[in-house]
Amino acid sequence: MIDSTSVDIRVRYPECDAQSVAHHSVFPVWMEIARVELLRANGASYRECEERGVYFVVVRMELKYRRPAKYDDVITVHVKKTDHSRIKIEHSYEIKRGEEMLAEATTTLACVDKTGRPKAMPEGFIE
Amino acid sequence: MIDSTSVDIRVRYPECDAQSVAHHSVFPVWMEIARVELLRANGASYRECEERGVYFVVVRMELKYRRPAKYDDVITVHVKKTDHSRIKIEHSYEIKRGEEMLAEATTTLACVDKTGRPKAMPEGFIE
Amino acid sequence: MIDSTSVDIRVRYPECDAQSVAHHSVFPVWMEIARVELLRANGASYRECEERGVYFVVVRMELKYRRPAKYDDVITVHVKKTDHSRIKIEHSYEIKRGEEMLAEATTTLACVDKTGRPKAMPEGFIE
Amino acid sequence: MIDSTSVDIRVRYPECDAQSVAHHSVFPVWMEIARVELLRANGASYRECEERGVYFVVVRMELKYRRPAKYDDVITVHVKKTDHSRIKIEHSYEIKRGEEMLAEATTTLACVDKTGRPKAMPEGFIE
Repeated sequence: MIDSTSVDIRVRYPECDAQSVAHHSVFPVWMEIARVELLRANGASYRECEERGVYFVVVRMELKYRRPAKYDDVITVHVKKTDHSRIKIEHSYEIKRGEEMLAEATTTLACVDKTGRPKAMPEGFIE
Repeated sequence: MIDSTSVDIRVRYPECDAQSVAHHSVFPVWMEIARVELLRANGASYRECEERGVYFVVVRMELKYRRPAKYDDVITVHVKKTDHSRIKIEHSYEIKRGEEMLAEATTTLACVDKTGRPKAMPEGFIE
Repeated sequence: MIDSTSVDIRVRYPECDAQSVAHHSVFPVWMEIARVELLRANGASYRECEERGVYFVVVRMELKYRRPAKYDDVITVHVKKTDHSRIKIEHSYEIKRGEEMLAEATTTLACVDKTGRPKAMPEGFIE
Repeated sequence: MIDSTSVDIRVRYPECDAQSVAHHSVFPVWMEIARVELLRANGASYRECEERGVYFVVVRMELKYRRPAKYDDVITVHVKKTDHSRIKIEHSYEIKRGEEMLAEATTTLACVDKTGRPKAMPEGFIE
């Protein structure tokens, strides 16, 4: 089981606001991309999860913003699985530009079925 | 059958880019809001359409941008149904700030089922 | 000084994901809209702030998601200023559908100049 | 002068709507990414353009949507400069998934200064 990975993402023009820096609401989008890649690094696909009726929803999220990400910057999102139970997973994140820390974050996700009811994660999914 | 309506929308901060004006990709979002309100003005709900397996997809869209929409502006989207067949609807749009024209647009939508196959529009939907 | 306000927002189609519920990254956008309206209720305009070189940036944000917001729902964002210093403001938020709690959140914003350096808030801004 | 290029983009989760396909308003965002890469292939950077007071704004855009782009698909945006004057550039686009055409589009961009007034493109920019 691979517990961490990182992805490089180039900051898009419409992700930026009047200050020419990425809007704070975009960081959760980048964090999600990193989570999906962590899943893929473990041989799974979130798209296939949903096709099999397994959904993950964010139930808690905290972010601390240190420095702005500018338009056209290539930033790196580091994601690490920090804890899990049968129905929840916790991740931590570092969003960096090279060695420079831009933001730190944590999330808790719950596994649910199509109707939103808690569901035990499939075998082989978390360990 | 009501053929036209208008909605007021306040330009959101993350809809704007480094030029402090709404990004061009946001106008189609506003046009869609106006279409949904035109449907509602006729006693229908797009949400209920989808719940009954009736989807509308944009198959063609053209926009001409005249002037920028600035952050916090209240703009008005005027939408008018201009033509239809059993499986397609055409609309035209004017996006204005007061009397000032910001953009003009047209769209063609097709009615499809959940799998994306063309579907005749339900009775009472277009006339 | 008015310390709290609320705004009604209709959930937009592209704000929703494959589960037909608002993506978690949209809640911070709605919270920002409520903050801007709280400012307006106090006779100020965030757009004018920026025009005078006063910017607010989110430095910390925490959200707890209780229930999904569905497409076309009208949700209410309640915002309350909970604390402030000369350079920071804290707010708490409740995002509800009628009486039903969808999410709770807190944010800390810092006042900065155009280059991102901390700046004391203008007189009359926080009390 | 390189007149065309292509970029691969993976469809993001929040770019998709209730139909699990990319919302039509996302295609212009992808097209813009391809234009920026075409500029970069010619040794220029749009970020530096703006830093020097040269902005490009979309003044016309037309899209024809053939097939949906699904969540997690890797799509390719092909962009080609088709015409230009001293103040305008025209591009055409093909958005494909492998050999399959998803959408075709054209745009016209105008070169403006920070205040939005037409401006002649810098030397070396268009040929």
